Amino acid sequence: MKKLINDPADVVVDALRGFEAAHSDRVRVDLDLKTIYRKDAPKKGKVALISGGGSGHEPMHGGFVGPGMLDAACCGEVFTSPVPDQMMAATTAVDGGAGVLHIVKNYTGDVMNFEMAAEMAEADSGIRVASIVTDDDVAVQDSLYTAGRRGVGVTVLLEKIAGAAAEEGRDLDAVLEVAKKVNGNGRSMGMALTSCTVPAAGEPTFELGEDEMEVGIGIHGEPGREKRPLASAREIAEQLLDPILKDHDFKGAPAIVMMNGMGGTPLLELYLMYGEVAKILEAQGVAIARNLVGNYITSLEMAGCSVTLLRADDELVSLWDAPVNTPGLRWGC
Amino acid sequence: MKKLINDPADVVVDALRGFEAAHSDRVRVDLDLKTIYRKDAPKKGKVALISGGGSGHEPMHGGFVGPGMLDAACCGEVFTSPVPDQMMAATTAVDGGAGVLHIVKNYTGDVMNFEMAAEMAEADSGIRVASIVTDDDVAVQDSLYTAGRRGVGVTVLLEKIAGAAAEEGRDLDAVLEVAKKVNGNGRSMGMALTSCTVPAAGEPTFELGEDEMEVGIGIHGEPGREKRPLASAREIAEQLLDPILKDHDFKGAPAIVMMNGMGGTPLLELYLMYGEVAKILEAQGVAIARNLVGNYITSLEMAGCSVTLLRADDELVSLWDAPVNTPGLRWGC
Repeated sequence: MKKLINDPADVVVDALRGFEAAHSDRVRVDLDLKTIYRKDAPKKGKVALISGGGSGHEPMHGGFVGPGMLDAACCGEVFTSPVPDQMMAATTAVDGGAGVLHIVKNYTGDVMNFEMAAEMAEADSGIRVASIVTDDDVAVQDSLYTAGRRGVGVTVLLEKIAGAAAEEGRDLDAVLEVAKKVNGNGRSMGMALTSCTVPAAGEPTFELGEDEMEVGIGIHGEPGREKRPLASAREIAEQLLDPILKDHDFKGAPAIVMMNGMGGTPLLELYLMYGEVAKILEAQGVAIARNLVGNYITSLEMAGCSVTLLRADDELVSLWDAPVNTPGLRWGC
Repeated sequence: MKKLINDPADVVVDALRGFEAAHSDRVRVDLDLKTIYRKDAPKKGKVALISGGGSGHEPMHGGFVGPGMLDAACCGEVFTSPVPDQMMAATTAVDGGAGVLHIVKNYTGDVMNFEMAAEMAEADSGIRVASIVTDDDVAVQDSLYTAGRRGVGVTVLLEKIAGAAAEEGRDLDAVLEVAKKVNGNGRSMGMALTSCTVPAAGEPTFELGEDEMEVGIGIHGEPGREKRPLASAREIAEQLLDPILKDHDFKGAPAIVMMNGMGGTPLLELYLMYGEVAKILEAQGVAIARNLVGNYITSLEMAGCSVTLLRADDELVSLWDAPVNTPGLRWGC
């Protein structure tokens, strides 16, 4: 295992210490609770947004804490859900009186633990909590860690767009409504060229031959649709977009497209893949209004990529364009 | 070789096509000349900045084209200098009457080709060209592709700071002076956990054992100081900072610090490394004023990192903070 770490048991807290040192202008970090807070939280009268999940997907979620996006992110161990105490403490800390939205990727542990935290926060402190569970991965119906579809790339877009809705003063019901619209109109599919190694495990999560790729991979290296022979970027773009375009209608509306790297993929290849994706979408009559190309929801050092499409409208594009000031996404500030 | 590409011979132009599709709001791309232009170039009366070099280091340089940074970036094949015709055409295209600064990393091919382009542009079009050659890598004096020190991470900081100086209307001499100040006060050192594979070669550039790392690596996988046993993040941070701090005095001034990933390193590890670097610098009495953590000057999918320190002052910090709107660095816009 070749990693820039100290003791594998301390990876998350060591990384959080570095994150705090780098971004103390915008965030504060509770190292005991492994939770990252927007520095000026709670914001009185603003709906607060919390997300969280296993570590190893950076910049998601901690990198999206800041004005225009999240108020807090709860970090679990690598690829392991945070515990309800974290989400409950964060919910209490960031509530500004307007309620809290939990943004949860559809993985069984995350869903269960966020639910418990929401119940505890409502019972103990009377805080109103709404939840959105993202489930945009068209690859598989059920999987190793999930009942139903997995929540992946759309989570990034949702945190941006719902964050903007909260920032402009919408109430909890309205922010939840926007979040549902994003999740309902977003679809993703990913693939891997290589596995990744969880520090505590010390061995690659799965095996792939020299001429193989895994299509439909989850963000923890859990199996996808199937192993297939390595293909060209053009063919891979087709294999990712086909199931997305069959699952939802993206024509006749502005699309927000994310070409996401899994952590170990050079930007050169992500741009190349984006070019292939843009070509296919143009031929299919899908108009790209906005795009992101880079590493946004990753799986440690896995090589590979995922595509997320969001069928947007003027409202969602306008919320997308609103100012955001986080370590991972920043514009207008 | 596992890569998201089509024909290895087309990697650069395919990636540029995707880059253009992603960022056509800010840049235009001449695919024949493999050159990326700021969309609104030439800017009348503004000193223009051009950089360039081999591809495979993204986001550098193309990702730094835009308001507040570069006016053009000339892209060579992977790890291969662009040719003089590219830099000459770019120089002519972006000159707004105030002259052009060439920002060149100290690699023999780059230096030679930029020099020829500068001479041609001056002789043919009477454009005034100044050049800054970066040479911040403390690892080795001469190397496989360089006489003198190699130009690495400081190039990113210099493009930002000199870009801001040009944007605020300074003349060519003044912009060159700022560039010299940055290069003279910047030092870098890098290391690799793994090699990378140039698409056209199809094989890893070098070999590293399972328990080895290469300290003092260049950005093309050219040898560094030595192969050493794999060490902890804490020890690696010391091994990178020691030669930097011995080479230049960073005390008593605000420092701008970049913790850069080589392309295949997860952000989790870069933050962890930044935490170690910040701890050492604090103990050494170096005050970090600004920082960057992420992939900025990469070597394809190489795993590893580099640290760049810039001894700054109020002027450089203020230019650093000025608005920038490029695909790779963006704030204040």
